[in-house]
Amino acid sequence: MDKNGFNVIEEIKNIETQGTKLSNTQKILLSTDGSVTSILDVLKGKINIKTLKQEYGGANDKISKILNIDEGEKVNYRVVVLRKDDTPLIYATSYTPLKRLTSEFKKDLTSADIPIGRILKKYNIESRREIKSIEIKKPNKELKEIFKTETDFLSRTYQIIHKNEILILIEEIFPSNSFIKSYE
Amino acid sequence: MDKNGFNVIEEIKNIETQGTKLSNTQKILLSTDGSVTSILDVLKGKINIKTLKQEYGGANDKISKILNIDEGEKVNYRVVVLRKDDTPLIYATSYTPLKRLTSEFKKDLTSADIPIGRILKKYNIESRREIKSIEIKKPNKELKEIFKTETDFLSRTYQIIHKNEILILIEEIFPSNSFIKSYE
Repeated sequence: MDKNGFNVIEEIKNIETQGTKLSNTQKILLSTDGSVTSILDVLKGKINIKTLKQEYGGANDKISKILNIDEGEKVNYRVVVLRKDDTPLIYATSYTPLKRLTSEFKKDLTSADIPIGRILKKYNIESRREIKSIEIKKPNKELKEIFKTETDFLSRTYQIIHKNEILILIEEIFPSNSFIKSYE
Repeated sequence: MDKNGFNVIEEIKNIETQGTKLSNTQKILLSTDGSVTSILDVLKGKINIKTLKQEYGGANDKISKILNIDEGEKVNYRVVVLRKDDTPLIYATSYTPLKRLTSEFKKDLTSADIPIGRILKKYNIESRREIKSIEIKKPNKELKEIFKTETDFLSRTYQIIHKNEILILIEEIFPSNSFIKSYE
């Protein structure tokens, strides 16, 4: 069990108890503390990202509490789709307190379509990941349109921690009928 | 491509070109920069380790060069089997320069059957992993006996890096006919 009381093994079991049998690949994508980009790279071939939204704003009450920053401090909010060629694989949203980024990291995060896992690797950043939630979710209109499916989605939220502070808060979400095969 | 010239995607392709089709789970186990213990925990249920060997000695020429320490400096050499109950899953060897460990890490590494991924998590250690090789190997007598198979094995070697120094050098090896199903 994690220090924050979150137990990944139990959460995965909970989802299966609710009637959604998870494949090994799905379980790993929901629970890994490694780079999801690297995993998709070896499963699908080198993936790309499409940035759907890139915004800067002052953190509201809720986000500032999660990120442990003051209300109103500047945060980058990014929405991307991890894709193989034009095929969407994972939809990801992230919140990043700008004051915790080096200028080179900030440049890559905000000006180029580079997945966060690849930015961390590029600058040899040592970090750890703490998973905060794993859930089944009904898709909204945007997800239905991107993935062209009405099925339930699997979601997880985690933090990338660097120098004992939250560098990035990420939610990743993908259709529950993807990543179900043994072999690609 | 990694700074050291090692390309995980290419190496995985190379192995498949040699005639060993890899499952998604195998590809992930060979390429992830996250904790393998965590992955096995969600796939199999909480795993345990059996320590087969635990030795201390001065680093020889080869190991000292890899670890970037002086020849003769003290190194912990550990051989373990990651298991679900009594079933062997992965055979792992590790070399750890003792001077880079805190006393609490050293105690857990050397006195208790705790997987390294779990020790890193316990002490909130920020790190990164660099994969150095991915290979197919013929099993020696010990591996054949432990896993009760004559099949080829899959192996990978990687370093866990902390504060820009190699904390641990690890090889993990498992039979090529394991981890081939979509669902456990």
